[in-house]
Amino acid sequence: MGRRGEFDLIAQLFAPLSDKHQGLGLTDDAALFVPRAGHTAVLTTDTLVAGIHFLPGDPPGELARKALRVNLSDLAAMGATPRGYLLNLAIQDSATDDWLNGFAAGLAADQHEFDIALLGGDTVRTPGPGVISITAIGEVRVGRALLRSGARVGDDIYVSGTIGDAAAGLRLLTAPNELNPSHAATLIDRYRLPRPRTTLGPALVGLATAAIDVSDGLIADLNHICQTSGVSALVGADLVPLSPAIEAAIADGLLTKLDAFGGGDDYEILFCAPREARDVLNRLAARLALPLTAIGEIGPGSGVQVLDHAGATIRIDHPGHTHF
Amino acid sequence: MGRRGEFDLIAQLFAPLSDKHQGLGLTDDAALFVPRAGHTAVLTTDTLVAGIHFLPGDPPGELARKALRVNLSDLAAMGATPRGYLLNLAIQDSATDDWLNGFAAGLAADQHEFDIALLGGDTVRTPGPGVISITAIGEVRVGRALLRSGARVGDDIYVSGTIGDAAAGLRLLTAPNELNPSHAATLIDRYRLPRPRTTLGPALVGLATAAIDVSDGLIADLNHICQTSGVSALVGADLVPLSPAIEAAIADGLLTKLDAFGGGDDYEILFCAPREARDVLNRLAARLALPLTAIGEIGPGSGVQVLDHAGATIRIDHPGHTHF
Repeated sequence: MGRRGEFDLIAQLFAPLSDKHQGLGLTDDAALFVPRAGHTAVLTTDTLVAGIHFLPGDPPGELARKALRVNLSDLAAMGATPRGYLLNLAIQDSATDDWLNGFAAGLAADQHEFDIALLGGDTVRTPGPGVISITAIGEVRVGRALLRSGARVGDDIYVSGTIGDAAAGLRLLTAPNELNPSHAATLIDRYRLPRPRTTLGPALVGLATAAIDVSDGLIADLNHICQTSGVSALVGADLVPLSPAIEAAIADGLLTKLDAFGGGDDYEILFCAPREARDVLNRLAARLALPLTAIGEIGPGSGVQVLDHAGATIRIDHPGHTHF
Repeated sequence: MGRRGEFDLIAQLFAPLSDKHQGLGLTDDAALFVPRAGHTAVLTTDTLVAGIHFLPGDPPGELARKALRVNLSDLAAMGATPRGYLLNLAIQDSATDDWLNGFAAGLAADQHEFDIALLGGDTVRTPGPGVISITAIGEVRVGRALLRSGARVGDDIYVSGTIGDAAAGLRLLTAPNELNPSHAATLIDRYRLPRPRTTLGPALVGLATAAIDVSDGLIADLNHICQTSGVSALVGADLVPLSPAIEAAIADGLLTKLDAFGGGDDYEILFCAPREARDVLNRLAARLALPLTAIGEIGPGSGVQVLDHAGATIRIDHPGHTHF
């Protein structure tokens, strides 16, 4: 790369992204974060390694946005509104100025889209694969955060949007196929650029009893809710919302419906809510133009059971995807 | 390494370190952080790469403590009290269970020493060198954080503790020498285990006009204050506090006094304060049993000038050390 030193990189690429007040223009020892009155800070962090979580040839702008968005998705699942983020970047020696400029441009685009600012970070070089850590900071009303632990017997189980698109997109990137190009582009885009449900999450505060974002896979993440809440879940396989693109991919034999349930990287919100919330949730879905689909029900005991249309249990061999 | 997966690592090593309330036992999507009433959150983060910022053979417990302490030092320089931290760990494939256990034990020891808890994080594997990012979270009274930008003409310049020990310690690790073993052990310990001034920092709120922790080197960090505050600094070389151990290392020709000024990794607090604060600062130093030494004065203009005992300007060719 052009031998820009750390101070130059900060001044040229990252200072323009910073919040002058809270991030102190990246010129001080630390950043300040003041939640609005009555709110608590919410913090989440995620690490991506080149060659494992992304490919060195991935467009750097999309990579930056994905690294940011997976964290915004975690905030949304807590019911929190995003406010800013910290960036830790271990830049691999082969990274070019173009790569760095593209990375910063991706961050700038998403800062605008999600109304957040860079508050601080650290930039170093590494002789190994690049490592990107982003820590997102948001806020939620004190005592109102959506936890995984609040699901109650009898709650409906909902998921936003559609499931499995990202998993199908990843397969399309790594295996030859004859899928309709428009469907293929849709699925690859869903893999590369998650849509964190930053508006839905805060709107679920006071409605949802438990929530998680679908990153490990629908069944695995539902199991996280069950374990933390001490309950079981029953899911109707035919109720899980699928996009036309993934329906086509399943029809083409690119993957099965069960692959979609265990695929990961959906970044939808999976949540539980009492039956009384049904009407309110329907109106919320209409207002956000985002489907909120009831896929099953919480019961006593433990574990996740998936039923086919005839009511028979479907065995799930690969409930989820690990990002480790 | 033993093939422990991410969930096992979190459950076995990191969940016991977490704050059950704020960190939610590391079982949710994000952590909550509630500053005390009237306080704002302060965030800082630092990344260390194996082979650059630490050696693969470094004791993992000391490495963990250093990674944590450099961040606590940044908080102290803002006048903030530390409360917790997030850990992003990209574990290199060759890391053993012993290494990971030692790393977690180091964190546990320092959590106890500094009364902080693990609030969250992310653990991944990397085929390259290990990368450790720690984000520390503290709190300071709203509007009272110590910034770099407040130094005023006529302020005294102070530094806590002694300067250059860590730089000398690093040289001892990499070059043969005949230094007295007790002095050598002192200097190496100062390099390996910074003493973040977490009690001093908050005590300087309302006294200091500007502050920074000495990580890049005394002169370089003083220059950061000068640039941000729009002032100059005059430092008396003979006023800079040196330990008996580094005096011996200088006498032995291991390094020069100027090397000490530019060496970095001191993690002392460099700060400015008006003359009226002298008596209060003397009493504070006595109460903390930590020397606070006046080393010069803030003036108009820009730049840092170092004078010898005869009042002649000393040329500084290497004002600082970059961690990039």
